[in-house]
Amino acid sequence: MSEFKLTTVEEMEAATNRLLETGAKVGADAWQYRVKNQTPHCKFGETGVCCRICAMGPCRITPKAPRGICGCDVHGIVGRNYLKFTAGGAATHSDHGREICHTLYESAADGDYKVKDPEKLIRIAKEWGIETEGKDIYDLAHEVAYTGLMEYGKPFGYQRFMERLPEHTQELWKKNEVAPRAIDREVATSMHMTHMGCSSLPEALIKQSIRAGLCDGWGGSMMGTEFSDVLFGTPKPVDTEANLGVMNADNVNIVVHGHDPSLSEMICEYADDPEMIAYAKEMGAKGITVSGVCCTSNEVAMRRGIPMAGNFLQQENVVLTGACEAIVVDVQCIFPALGPLSKCFHTKFITTSPVAQMPDSEFIRFNAKTAGENAKAIVKMAVENFKNRKPELVHIPDMKQKATVGYSLEAIVKTLDGVTNTQVDQTGTLKPLWDCVAAGVIRGAVAMVGCNNPKVRPDYAHIELMKYLLKHDIIIVASGCSAQAAAKAGLMDKRAKDLCGAGLKRVCELADIPPVLHMGSCVDISRMMNLVSELAKVGGVNISQLPVVGCAPEWMSEKAVSIGNYVIGTGIDTFLGVDPYVSGSSEVAELLTNGTRQWVEAAFTVEKDIEQLGIKMRDRIEEKRAALGV
Amino acid sequence: MSEFKLTTVEEMEAATNRLLETGAKVGADAWQYRVKNQTPHCKFGETGVCCRICAMGPCRITPKAPRGICGCDVHGIVGRNYLKFTAGGAATHSDHGREICHTLYESAADGDYKVKDPEKLIRIAKEWGIETEGKDIYDLAHEVAYTGLMEYGKPFGYQRFMERLPEHTQELWKKNEVAPRAIDREVATSMHMTHMGCSSLPEALIKQSIRAGLCDGWGGSMMGTEFSDVLFGTPKPVDTEANLGVMNADNVNIVVHGHDPSLSEMICEYADDPEMIAYAKEMGAKGITVSGVCCTSNEVAMRRGIPMAGNFLQQENVVLTGACEAIVVDVQCIFPALGPLSKCFHTKFITTSPVAQMPDSEFIRFNAKTAGENAKAIVKMAVENFKNRKPELVHIPDMKQKATVGYSLEAIVKTLDGVTNTQVDQTGTLKPLWDCVAAGVIRGAVAMVGCNNPKVRPDYAHIELMKYLLKHDIIIVASGCSAQAAAKAGLMDKRAKDLCGAGLKRVCELADIPPVLHMGSCVDISRMMNLVSELAKVGGVNISQLPVVGCAPEWMSEKAVSIGNYVIGTGIDTFLGVDPYVSGSSEVAELLTNGTRQWVEAAFTVEKDIEQLGIKMRDRIEEKRAALGV
Repeated sequence: MSEFKLTTVEEMEAATNRLLETGAKVGADAWQYRVKNQTPHCKFGETGVCCRICAMGPCRITPKAPRGICGCDVHGIVGRNYLKFTAGGAATHSDHGREICHTLYESAADGDYKVKDPEKLIRIAKEWGIETEGKDIYDLAHEVAYTGLMEYGKPFGYQRFMERLPEHTQELWKKNEVAPRAIDREVATSMHMTHMGCSSLPEALIKQSIRAGLCDGWGGSMMGTEFSDVLFGTPKPVDTEANLGVMNADNVNIVVHGHDPSLSEMICEYADDPEMIAYAKEMGAKGITVSGVCCTSNEVAMRRGIPMAGNFLQQENVVLTGACEAIVVDVQCIFPALGPLSKCFHTKFITTSPVAQMPDSEFIRFNAKTAGENAKAIVKMAVENFKNRKPELVHIPDMKQKATVGYSLEAIVKTLDGVTNTQVDQTGTLKPLWDCVAAGVIRGAVAMVGCNNPKVRPDYAHIELMKYLLKHDIIIVASGCSAQAAAKAGLMDKRAKDLCGAGLKRVCELADIPPVLHMGSCVDISRMMNLVSELAKVGGVNISQLPVVGCAPEWMSEKAVSIGNYVIGTGIDTFLGVDPYVSGSSEVAELLTNGTRQWVEAAFTVEKDIEQLGIKMRDRIEEKRAALGV
Repeated sequence: MSEFKLTTVEEMEAATNRLLETGAKVGADAWQYRVKNQTPHCKFGETGVCCRICAMGPCRITPKAPRGICGCDVHGIVGRNYLKFTAGGAATHSDHGREICHTLYESAADGDYKVKDPEKLIRIAKEWGIETEGKDIYDLAHEVAYTGLMEYGKPFGYQRFMERLPEHTQELWKKNEVAPRAIDREVATSMHMTHMGCSSLPEALIKQSIRAGLCDGWGGSMMGTEFSDVLFGTPKPVDTEANLGVMNADNVNIVVHGHDPSLSEMICEYADDPEMIAYAKEMGAKGITVSGVCCTSNEVAMRRGIPMAGNFLQQENVVLTGACEAIVVDVQCIFPALGPLSKCFHTKFITTSPVAQMPDSEFIRFNAKTAGENAKAIVKMAVENFKNRKPELVHIPDMKQKATVGYSLEAIVKTLDGVTNTQVDQTGTLKPLWDCVAAGVIRGAVAMVGCNNPKVRPDYAHIELMKYLLKHDIIIVASGCSAQAAAKAGLMDKRAKDLCGAGLKRVCELADIPPVLHMGSCVDISRMMNLVSELAKVGGVNISQLPVVGCAPEWMSEKAVSIGNYVIGTGIDTFLGVDPYVSGSSEVAELLTNGTRQWVEAAFTVEKDIEQLGIKMRDRIEEKRAALGV
């Protein structure tokens, strides 16, 4: 076994620069150049004080123009922009969840989509009060899927998964009117509140932001996660690799990118098909390599060990290798830049979702009923494209790390069972984790999530913060692009335990885990919510008392803001490295960084200095410990 | 009877200027000043080329920066902004409709809300396949309301009201994938499509804009209209008055403002209560006058003949009279400026909806269960505020016109029955109207709708266009602030027939109608949709063949854009006097002004020259006639 060494951000940047040289040869554009063209950003927009909600404007707040034409002040404008931003994210995650519900609804014993985890399906059915006895598993799947779909639009009642929470949280939400009703309703109501001449009171707008976030985290996202597990299997620890070096110059390279696993699961199936592999060989390749970008990557990595080519700001890099036969995308976070970029190479840029249609792409419309044939056509197209590769443009950076991924909540519990003294303690609980935390062997946990953003040196914040926290015995659970940053750096290699403080290191050794646990894609932050909820119950405390915080140091999307809202909504302080366009309003900023505590016992901290961000998180965790008396 | 003369825009402006003098005395702000502070508007925003959808930006497209950081081009950015704008409007109208459904669900024989039009309820129940025989009317109301609420979130199927349309339209919508599914779903999906890294293909974005619009027009708005009729009565012709002169210096003046009639209906009830009138007299007033602003005004004018104090850009004027004891608002189009403005006077600014909370207001939370007591408290508060009036500030412009309003589709049919030869023709249809159109006595119809916008001289476009069209025998159906502009000018006085061409004048005389028919509030544009749909059926033609166009010359809100989308979606060419922030993209502009014809047989025309706008509408109507051969 070779010596273990983290990959540095400098090394990653050098690899990117080498790829940009290839790009320059073919006249390719890249985000690095576009950032220069778009900088400096508009200060009005960046501080949230520009309003385009009606066509009387746009209006911009300045000392000389303190109100918009309708009379809205800066706090109303910033607050409305923030709520619209949140609603965009909540709708997006939840619509992804809806698609998964529809896929489950289409599942069939002889269909493209099957129930791979019937046990989980039955568990959820029981949780929801659906009769399971003597029912065909597909009848049950359809009934559960239909019930899930109704969570989007039921005229009365709160989200079903809310009942998973400690009583205290449920009461808090109901009392403060942030308990999420039908998912789509919260989105629509947010859009109503932010319409011209509706709400301009910051408290009302921020409260609804939390509610909209909660319908995502405890509604749409959670269904996305749970039913993906039912359909594709609940993740278990699995070994894989990360970074561009996972692409194989000898093989047909298919890169899956986006968020919804329905497509990528099928692509993986067909890329493994002996017939397709034979066809690839016929075309001069040695085989077929599927790798992933963004959350689609996380989904198939968690369930199949499919390697991760990179995260958000590396999506152009996979094409710049010159060795990508097809980049196949579903929804969200897909650069429209991939269209023109793919034209500079032989790469096929294949869009598949009606929800994400882009110019300069080949649109192969994917749906649950034709999934198999769609996927086969895509794989075939990629294979046949191998011959069009231009060898002189091919360069795959020799850079990858090993990673153990697949830490669903179920997998974490199972791992903990392995270190439980079954003579004394019950298995199947988070008690061993609570004991570690209470004893101080682990000081606390940070949920590292979110994107990359050129406003932060890409991956640097993720990796540096993790290293700092691990050193101080704070365990990391990670998802999304943050998880991929960790994996690329090597922090999901079990040998990374040596970077930890003595307590955490010992835990990693005993439990045989990496110090950064990959919990999945962005919708899978719902796994983290279930984790903290269960941990609070085990510890007999409120969620807000746990020495746990959330962190999105490089976030960029509306979804990330929705997530932030549901994480604080769940009672977990959340630390951001990028300002969510609210600095223009002292009132909104104060609400988000403090005022929300009155409703949900948690708030945001925005800190652009990454070192300070780490210190502040550690301080918060130690404060929580002190308050708990542990 | 005094001689009939239209009120001119110049006269209205002079009255406003006099009120602004009062405002100056007390240091009041006004939109006229804020427009100056906010002009010139940001060109990036105004042309739609600024993107704030993710936190990597904001990005702005220029010749030197032709793509955003994600690589999105100007067409994708403009298209996404347009879809988000539409979704905001569709959500807003529809959420209003949802509230009405909830109110219907709460109706009870002994409750604050009763079923005033059981016949209409039964008609809709039958239309929806709900058993009506032998059912208690409130049981039926609750069942219909629940079914209506399900239209917001049902997992499968299209909007029920779609079946009202000619077969041809339904087929067109299904084929082109613009048939509206669950209302909230279309909103949420729009938000998903416009998320970072989803759709950037203009065709996809504009198609979804139409679909989102249609879920408003043939979903949420239509339910808002229909169930308001069930609850509060289907409008019938009723005489009323319009313009600020309807306020009464001797009385307690309560102004209702917003959109949802649930509140204002109750206010009207209690303002009529002898106990309250006696109380007002005790407080030194002669009585209580309720008048309205914006669409709440249209609602109570149509059903109760409550006078209309003014439209959107007159909302500050009612306070500036110094004689407004309370301005009571529900949702939408309410200037946050009313907060600080009311503080310059004795006026109580009372907000009532959780969806529209504003600073500097008294919040009396209104809901269906406590409606009566809420309304009573509000009326009482206004009465008690009479004594705080400052006489030296009181000036009510002596300016009002008579208006006959209340032209629901049912009322129009009934009116037509009056001119039907019952020996020859069937009653209860639009046949007489079709015959007039086919014969050329009426050349066609224009649906005049929408707001005021300081970018257009307020009310001028509405009034001048109407005068021009009437002269050319084109009948006007109007709603929203356009209807109020007409009423203020005198165009809803039956004597305005003299402004019409000979054919239309004759029709007005025979049918005893004003030449501009007030069809209600903005959600009531659904009445116009039913009208054209029925007219097409009667004529045996497609909707798009009718010599009918829509026009919003002074629009300003997201709702207006949603309306525009459903009007063209229904097959009716629509003419706008304000550009919907799309001029920055040639592709989006071309789609909206032409490309949508391929899907829905209609498109927009944007024309800022009001005279040209009138000419173009008339030309379009004559073109349609020629094509029809009539």
